[in-house]
Amino acid sequence: MSDQEQGYFTEENSAEVVISRNANAKNERLAEVMAVVTKHLHAAVKEIEPTQEEWFEAIQFLTKVGHACNDWRQEFILLSDSLGVSMLVDAINNRKPSGASESTVLGPFHVEDAPELPMGADICLDQKGEPMLVRGRITGTDGQPIANAKIDVWQANDEGFYDVQQKGLQPDFNLRGVFRTGADGTYHFKGVKPKYYPIPDDGPVGQMLTQLGRHPYRPAHLHYILEADGFDTLITHIFDPDDPYIHSDAVFGVKESLLAKFDLIEDPARISAAGFDRPYYEVVHDFVLAPKS
Amino acid sequence: MSDQEQGYFTEENSAEVVISRNANAKNERLAEVMAVVTKHLHAAVKEIEPTQEEWFEAIQFLTKVGHACNDWRQEFILLSDSLGVSMLVDAINNRKPSGASESTVLGPFHVEDAPELPMGADICLDQKGEPMLVRGRITGTDGQPIANAKIDVWQANDEGFYDVQQKGLQPDFNLRGVFRTGADGTYHFKGVKPKYYPIPDDGPVGQMLTQLGRHPYRPAHLHYILEADGFDTLITHIFDPDDPYIHSDAVFGVKESLLAKFDLIEDPARISAAGFDRPYYEVVHDFVLAPKS
Ligand SMILES: [Fe+2]
Ligand SMILES: [Fe+2]
Repeated sequence: MSDQEQGYFTEENSAEVVISRNANAKNERLAEVMAVVTKHLHAAVKEIEPTQEEWFEAIQFLTKVGHACNDWRQEFILLSDSLGVSMLVDAINNRKPSGASESTVLGPFHVEDAPELPMGADICLDQKGEPMLVRGRITGTDGQPIANAKIDVWQANDEGFYDVQQKGLQPDFNLRGVFRTGADGTYHFKGVKPKYYPIPDDGPVGQMLTQLGRHPYRPAHLHYILEADGFDTLITHIFDPDDPYIHSDAVFGVKESLLAKFDLIEDPARISAAGFDRPYYEVVHDFVLAPKS
Repeated sequence: MSDQEQGYFTEENSAEVVISRNANAKNERLAEVMAVVTKHLHAAVKEIEPTQEEWFEAIQFLTKVGHACNDWRQEFILLSDSLGVSMLVDAINNRKPSGASESTVLGPFHVEDAPELPMGADICLDQKGEPMLVRGRITGTDGQPIANAKIDVWQANDEGFYDVQQKGLQPDFNLRGVFRTGADGTYHFKGVKPKYYPIPDDGPVGQMLTQLGRHPYRPAHLHYILEADGFDTLITHIFDPDDPYIHSDAVFGVKESLLAKFDLIEDPARISAAGFDRPYYEVVHDFVLAPKS
């Protein structure tokens, strides 16, 4: 339909008129995406009925979010995270077969070149905080152990900071490590009980959260990337179910199946067997990888 | 409902979980707006099913739009304009009673301090282009002429540029003027036949339009702001219905009722009576103001 047949823009036909302009798009997928965006954007505006001043406040907010973005900070990703959009995109792209472990967001603190360590190594390089032993098994959906699976783990420290946020204060690669499973598919390593931490809240997204009565915290968690030949890569976390923010993760990353258990072990025999000199937390969590899709 | 009762975020309940976090908002209106935004944003994502790469392209696009904004360029307003959002907000905020003239967008080229001129003055200060005489009458919805109405007009020149875009090339305040009606409510002034012009298309919004197969042009028009005691202020344009882009205004500003007629007058007697030395365009357009709401 030509624009002429479509008629001029009115409050009633607004989205249809805008969408009809894309009839000769060079990028078919972009036209498809923008048709959906336009439809929902106009529906939202019609439902909100913003004043001109409110519309301009929205323009100014988006401009501030853009200006807050630089080489080391991505405020639009924070906005997407804090509105649940990042988790929704993750969910859509990681629908798992029944029985497979669920994914959650990657987050901004992964580094590519973490050291490969012998199974059982302690990734906590500065002995700060309460010691933790993490162990479990990696299998396929058929229950068979996966050998030579690559386990990339990273975590915040006992104060809620990643090494890359505290260069000079924490050793390089503190609380990061890459492990490989043996024939039995099991893994274990030592670390420190992680703490909840805020997403960066000193920018426009933080101001929005404050106005909405929301806090910026993510409940304590460990990050994992699990890779193995013949299986889909799994990007996920495990969470401390006793964290004060477990029911209100600022980025909506928590799933029931990702709750681990952090057991405080005080038995001297077990402390000594684990190679610690004081009580420690034991976290047992298995993962099930989906066959390559 | 607490987050705990609400349960964790899933693909199915995503918008509800995000919205439930605003239960203790400090800014009630913002919470209301963000509930609608979140609902439609999640609905759009579910309909689009973006890949992670597409999601990141969207993040990068918004970031580029933000980085293109500075003191003299507002790329987010361009984005709003080119998706019809600005016109939709205009329509929602300017629903007129039957018989009143319709509004359209203000645009970025209005200046506050244009000179007040005697009725009939020529606002074209450099004699470039084809001469034009604009005239009409301003009445209320009751048909009574409005005296002492303030008419603020501005227009692009014969090449499609406003004075503020060509500082030094055009005289200051070229093609701008403020007039006041007498007792009969009529107005008339001289100008130049305007030309279509592109919205700024050398940024990310221009790239988007190109990918969508859209041109950046606005059909030729004259801008008006009409103010009178006891009446709603009217911000509008009148358009040349013969313009090649009249059915595809890049910002969707055209309305049927805003089409004027540009008549070429070649009769020597009328040319001389109008005070011109060559054929001119005559544009007759009346305006009807709505009583103050
Ligand atoms: Fe994290
Ligand atoms: Fe204009």
